[in-house]
Amino acid sequence: MQTIGYAAQSATSPLGGFSFERRKPNPNDVAIDILYCGVCHSDLHQAHDDWGGSIYPMVPGHEIVGRVSAVGGDVERFAVGDLVAVGCIVDSCQHCDQCHAGEEQLCREGVTVTYNGRERASGNPTYGGYSQHIVVRQEFVLSVPENLDVARVAPLLCAGITTYSPLRHWGIGPGSRVGVIGLGGLGHMAVKFAVALGAHVTVMSRTPDKEEDALALGAEALLVSTDDAQMAEAANAFDLIIDTVPVKHDIKPYMPLLDIEGTLVIVGQIGDMGDFNSLPLLMGRRKISGSPIGGIAETQEMLDFAGRMNVLPDCETVAMPDINAAWDRLAKGDVRYRFVIDMATLTAE
Amino acid sequence: MQTIGYAAQSATSPLGGFSFERRKPNPNDVAIDILYCGVCHSDLHQAHDDWGGSIYPMVPGHEIVGRVSAVGGDVERFAVGDLVAVGCIVDSCQHCDQCHAGEEQLCREGVTVTYNGRERASGNPTYGGYSQHIVVRQEFVLSVPENLDVARVAPLLCAGITTYSPLRHWGIGPGSRVGVIGLGGLGHMAVKFAVALGAHVTVMSRTPDKEEDALALGAEALLVSTDDAQMAEAANAFDLIIDTVPVKHDIKPYMPLLDIEGTLVIVGQIGDMGDFNSLPLLMGRRKISGSPIGGIAETQEMLDFAGRMNVLPDCETVAMPDINAAWDRLAKGDVRYRFVIDMATLTAE
Repeated sequence: MQTIGYAAQSATSPLGGFSFERRKPNPNDVAIDILYCGVCHSDLHQAHDDWGGSIYPMVPGHEIVGRVSAVGGDVERFAVGDLVAVGCIVDSCQHCDQCHAGEEQLCREGVTVTYNGRERASGNPTYGGYSQHIVVRQEFVLSVPENLDVARVAPLLCAGITTYSPLRHWGIGPGSRVGVIGLGGLGHMAVKFAVALGAHVTVMSRTPDKEEDALALGAEALLVSTDDAQMAEAANAFDLIIDTVPVKHDIKPYMPLLDIEGTLVIVGQIGDMGDFNSLPLLMGRRKISGSPIGGIAETQEMLDFAGRMNVLPDCETVAMPDINAAWDRLAKGDVRYRFVIDMATLTAE
Repeated sequence: MQTIGYAAQSATSPLGGFSFERRKPNPNDVAIDILYCGVCHSDLHQAHDDWGGSIYPMVPGHEIVGRVSAVGGDVERFAVGDLVAVGCIVDSCQHCDQCHAGEEQLCREGVTVTYNGRERASGNPTYGGYSQHIVVRQEFVLSVPENLDVARVAPLLCAGITTYSPLRHWGIGPGSRVGVIGLGGLGHMAVKFAVALGAHVTVMSRTPDKEEDALALGAEALLVSTDDAQMAEAANAFDLIIDTVPVKHDIKPYMPLLDIEGTLVIVGQIGDMGDFNSLPLLMGRRKISGSPIGGIAETQEMLDFAGRMNVLPDCETVAMPDINAAWDRLAKGDVRYRFVIDMATLTAE
């Protein structure tokens, strides 16, 4: 199937119109007309080859919402017209211990990512959601609750599951005390999901100017990390701290804020984290960990939970032709809190 | 009760004979004639005030084995003549959540350490096991299985519980894959306990010269951490890595050796650990943690387990007057693997 999208042709070129072929649906495939695609910070990193190994042309986008346009002969769970979603992964080996455990994102043979990856069988590049259509094997297609505002669902597929998964993994529920470092695309979803799960939520920020936003999102307090008195008073105050800061930063000031057995889980920065100190780890069996998106079953659980609780990101809708300006603003942190591309604005030039 | 011991009079003075008063047993106290006391690396650190706040004169020693010489009127669990032990802690608040959970070492009000601390009621300094007698409240006195070689029991009270506790906390049992970094007092106990629990154990060392010792202790292999090929081959090979290295060192090479959900637990170095990388944490929910000795119930469980399995440290017995030479050797790592002071050699000068 011929389709159109926006692609980066190199690490330095802006996004521009791109015409390409989607595979004809296999018996196990679902073909989707894309309605909206969220803009993730990792789109910029990969388009700019910040992490190395990028494949060009690159059609970014792994927060995809659309309607089923066709299904292969073996597909029983989806029908034409269904509201569906696709996240960061579109394939895995399906037979290793991790896949069997529903942790496809940790597949032993390596996951097939939605874009900037290669299809397992053909080796062809995968192209993401900045496009009109996508074809995905049914095991990696998710159902979207129809009651949700479809224009705001897309960021759940990356920012949403990336924050929901650690909240669930570390057993957050009513009465839990959760800290969230950073209030961007990931951070604001961490606050919303933690609040929806019944936790007491505190946002941590270097400056006090985010207090109003934090409270509006449902947090009970803003903790200013540069205020030594506030930090000292918050010793042992959290069961879980979700660290959404997407750049290298010092975690040492946050570790004593964890209660005994508490965990600081990194979901933002991938790479060098600077130094740490073992004292708060030893004196309370505190933990530093990380968490990568989530498995397919958990992503479906997250969408269903979002549907029941009406948890949605705060979004700014952008037109496909305006994507480069949106990326520039995202690079400066100028969005509250997530851009979503309205794919109806994508037309052949 | 008047007693004698060896004390450091300052951060720079060698240990020398010291006469001092032990409290008269309270109704809840057990008085103990000390038979053996282990020599822990932390004895040197505290005597030299490496961590600050040291109290002088200091009688070190928190790996204590002896026989009950008297009991207070409220003591029912112990009788004169019982073989008993005292570890790193001699008191705690007994009413906080941690004490109630049997995690006295993490007492919310702060634990009373066996030496270089202060008694909760009187504020008097606590004096440790480099001495003839000690008086301890019964809740912090442990029973020693009579079948164990009493000359080798003492190091179980610190090196033993420090390594046994994380093995139990992280669920190590038959089939578990355990790595042990460093083969000193802590490391060799980690190997012995992990083997006794049924795990497959690998010792990690910078040089291959410890292979014979590692295998003799029950490990299945020595992994040379400076051998890139060996390290690459060991990717994802461990459920738990116990890091016993007592100085600042780089943990980054070890993190990819953990399997998904695996934990590197620090029990050696307290303080600055240098930098780390979040990639192996995110891509597999790996964890960095620490563990501090263990609670009283778990310490008793450890002693009972050691009795059943006849797990004992490898010790070199030293006479009390030779302690300064032993400390010099310990500082150079010249002991396999733990010095134990025979308190029969302690006499009034």
